[in-house]
Amino acid sequence: MNETYYFDLYEPLFCMKTIDLNCDMGESFGAWTLGNDEKLMNYVSSVNIACGFHAGDADTMHRTVALAIQKNVAIGAHPGFPDLQGFGRRPMHLSPREVHNLVLYQIGALAAFVNAAGAKLHHVKPHGALYNMAAKDATLAHSIAQAVKELDGSLVLYGLSGSHLISEAQKLGLQTASEVFTDRTYQPDGSLTPRTQPDALIEATGDSLRQVLQMVQQGTVQSVDGQTVAIQADTLCIHGDGPHAVAFAQSIAHTFQENGILVKAFA
Amino acid sequence: MNETYYFDLYEPLFCMKTIDLNCDMGESFGAWTLGNDEKLMNYVSSVNIACGFHAGDADTMHRTVALAIQKNVAIGAHPGFPDLQGFGRRPMHLSPREVHNLVLYQIGALAAFVNAAGAKLHHVKPHGALYNMAAKDATLAHSIAQAVKELDGSLVLYGLSGSHLISEAQKLGLQTASEVFTDRTYQPDGSLTPRTQPDALIEATGDSLRQVLQMVQQGTVQSVDGQTVAIQADTLCIHGDGPHAVAFAQSIAHTFQENGILVKAFA
Amino acid sequence: MNETYYFDLYEPLFCMKTIDLNCDMGESFGAWTLGNDEKLMNYVSSVNIACGFHAGDADTMHRTVALAIQKNVAIGAHPGFPDLQGFGRRPMHLSPREVHNLVLYQIGALAAFVNAAGAKLHHVKPHGALYNMAAKDATLAHSIAQAVKELDGSLVLYGLSGSHLISEAQKLGLQTASEVFTDRTYQPDGSLTPRTQPDALIEATGDSLRQVLQMVQQGTVQSVDGQTVAIQADTLCIHGDGPHAVAFAQSIAHTFQENGILVKAFA
Amino acid sequence: MNETYYFDLYEPLFCMKTIDLNCDMGESFGAWTLGNDEKLMNYVSSVNIACGFHAGDADTMHRTVALAIQKNVAIGAHPGFPDLQGFGRRPMHLSPREVHNLVLYQIGALAAFVNAAGAKLHHVKPHGALYNMAAKDATLAHSIAQAVKELDGSLVLYGLSGSHLISEAQKLGLQTASEVFTDRTYQPDGSLTPRTQPDALIEATGDSLRQVLQMVQQGTVQSVDGQTVAIQADTLCIHGDGPHAVAFAQSIAHTFQENGILVKAFA
Repeated sequence: MNETYYFDLYEPLFCMKTIDLNCDMGESFGAWTLGNDEKLMNYVSSVNIACGFHAGDADTMHRTVALAIQKNVAIGAHPGFPDLQGFGRRPMHLSPREVHNLVLYQIGALAAFVNAAGAKLHHVKPHGALYNMAAKDATLAHSIAQAVKELDGSLVLYGLSGSHLISEAQKLGLQTASEVFTDRTYQPDGSLTPRTQPDALIEATGDSLRQVLQMVQQGTVQSVDGQTVAIQADTLCIHGDGPHAVAFAQSIAHTFQENGILVKAFA
Repeated sequence: MNETYYFDLYEPLFCMKTIDLNCDMGESFGAWTLGNDEKLMNYVSSVNIACGFHAGDADTMHRTVALAIQKNVAIGAHPGFPDLQGFGRRPMHLSPREVHNLVLYQIGALAAFVNAAGAKLHHVKPHGALYNMAAKDATLAHSIAQAVKELDGSLVLYGLSGSHLISEAQKLGLQTASEVFTDRTYQPDGSLTPRTQPDALIEATGDSLRQVLQMVQQGTVQSVDGQTVAIQADTLCIHGDGPHAVAFAQSIAHTFQENGILVKAFA
Repeated sequence: MNETYYFDLYEPLFCMKTIDLNCDMGESFGAWTLGNDEKLMNYVSSVNIACGFHAGDADTMHRTVALAIQKNVAIGAHPGFPDLQGFGRRPMHLSPREVHNLVLYQIGALAAFVNAAGAKLHHVKPHGALYNMAAKDATLAHSIAQAVKELDGSLVLYGLSGSHLISEAQKLGLQTASEVFTDRTYQPDGSLTPRTQPDALIEATGDSLRQVLQMVQQGTVQSVDGQTVAIQADTLCIHGDGPHAVAFAQSIAHTFQENGILVKAFA
Repeated sequence: MNETYYFDLYEPLFCMKTIDLNCDMGESFGAWTLGNDEKLMNYVSSVNIACGFHAGDADTMHRTVALAIQKNVAIGAHPGFPDLQGFGRRPMHLSPREVHNLVLYQIGALAAFVNAAGAKLHHVKPHGALYNMAAKDATLAHSIAQAVKELDGSLVLYGLSGSHLISEAQKLGLQTASEVFTDRTYQPDGSLTPRTQPDALIEATGDSLRQVLQMVQQGTVQSVDGQTVAIQADTLCIHGDGPHAVAFAQSIAHTFQENGILVKAFA
């Protein structure tokens, strides 16, 4: 959750709530297509583009970067584990140095397409198992943050709100965007309810929208046991690969508009 | 072949011949090692580092870049076809756009390691079958040169002397380094004798050194039929993977020193 | 084109025309799905299952083999070049030994799933660029046929009708199924009109069905210049990845039924 | 530990101790070579050949199978995780079904080379992280054993002595070979001392040979705390990739010969 100030001749200085809406994109590979990038880019403010290790070949990256520039959304690198078959969702145990290097490699590859197109890379968000493991493992989180900082200290690191990824990045002086989810429930300590539990997912769109609104407007979330818990919500992840992805993106954009919340890339 | 001017109090302005000596490096992969990078970096002035498609994983790239910076040699990206098993030596027929994108991807990945280490990428030299095909195919050559220019117009493109890679790069306004070989014979038109012919290779080290010296000092080469042919020799490729690679590098460095030729990265 | 004899109490011995209808299947990979395997298996008599090099991971292979057994269609291995990004459609220049080995590897991998499920591999059909290159290159064709024969001399090799793949396989004593296409026009010499020519494809379904019927019933095809040309048609390839694939499969099945032609795996 | 009976005209029936000596082989990949397969095959009785996922391409597999047949050693498949860069040594969390399928795929691929060469696959030994994880995880162990059994119930499964891999295989009725190590110390419960502990490795060759001899002759091992512990030793793993691999293989072969122990593939 950020605040942007607007000046107006007739109105006093006011503060408008803003939220970054991000989505994973460029997840096609070769002859295989996935997602609905072109339509979803009409609703989000930032995109995380796969870098070839878990999805996204060089042609897909080139095409997706061009589309993001045309749609004027902030571009992020979305590095993942080298596991194309598993889509980067299967945990792999790599050394901190290996993680540092694969992150650096993938950010660099994507940055080349962004720079060649005359734009600038905005952020980095780890993908899948790498994201989840780094949320809980400070050493892994540090390796990722270190790679980001070495390449470009002005990049924003997107990570799970309240996780090691955020705290390790902040220790290195990086800007961070704390990510919250629309379709996941939260524990009293502000962590996500594990997917192994029956109440991990929010099924109804209305409940999702209510939770999101509370997060952005109040900076809080209702935990599964009914407590009101503080949560940092700088950026909101929406999924791009389900059959209802576009419809949900529309709903959420509409909800924000109705509530005077501006969808805007994290700055 | 370049010329560097030195000023001295007691001597008049003189012009010293210089030559760039380049070598492919970082060609290990995971548990497999190849080449003798550390020793060879004592003799060469520029290195072409594999970028993960035909050789060189992210860890190898990280290590090799650090070594190159320590040894103070100019660092180039060495993009190749996506063919690890074939070491990028097997021709693949890709579209110009696919080639453009795989080159951009690989340069970007290597540049990340170079930039993260506080250095700057100096050049790009295509590898193996990509190098050979681009030498003869203007469209392919243009795709590669275009990718280099889009990323960074100050990068030097290394290519076979007299080839389409050089001419297409020059059309785009890129700096080029015309590459010659120590162990290959030449045709009357200045092209390499195809490897399918019995006299394609120079076996004796003495003959190699004589040819190199003539190229650098005179800007000419004796073709297989005895003619003296003009050849542009900006950079000289030495091989890094044979059992005698280090000994040959020493011989050539010694020959240059004896003849007052300075080994220096192309500028 | 084969002939199957049926005996009936009230009818004299008659000969029913049969044709094998084959389709490439199992072309999904990891999180990416492609094709409509389950529906198409209702209409075809044999399937060519991708083996992991150009498409199809081990899980997809396992699932597709199980489906093929359930649908009672003949199972073939569909080996391709090691080029996932290019879907095996980009020509690669490999040595005959390399081709022999990659074919053997892929057939073996698929056969494991077939055998583990208690069935038997029926045929081998090379995929994409490997199929096209082997059609015109006797050495490559021999390498493939040799690999098939070494593994199991009772396997049928599917190849382009009139091509080197068929003739080389026959020289080794393998059974062959000459393949024809529903959507391609033919030259006076019985070869396919190259895709680079404007009249390469048959657009209208009616024209496709007429051509197919003539091939199966008469053993001839009308070439683009109007000649009637002899053609061996043992198996007919239908495409599985277009939006109209299932509808076309239904049309062709219906056409065959109406004309008393039995769709049946090549034997 | 097995026993082979020889009959002799002048001697009474005697029982000679035998041991299987196995070694991982075929671990080269493309242009990269690893190990000293040809020399080591003079000393071992069985080899585990990499199947392309963590090492070993189709050409290496073809060549290594031919060599094994020539040297008359028993041939095993050595399936690993799909992680070429990590040599299959990095733990990956895959579902039981995924593990089942990747094992089936790899065994099938190797079996094709073995069968094409007129020989028969003898055993399966999982590699690296897959071996270690399956030793401790009954579900994973079951998936592997199930894949082996489905393909060919006469294959022997090699696994860590006393591990889940052995017990799960036995539950399915497979033959098993319990593997012991020459260079690792043992705990009082018969398990290996974890590598994280300082006394995990046996450094001196003499100590290794003494431990091996005791295992084969007595069926026991001295644990790190000095107890004599029963251990099943059917096959002994020697490493093929160190600088002293051949010399150690010679020492161990000589030790066995001196002590009247026959090196012989597990049967």
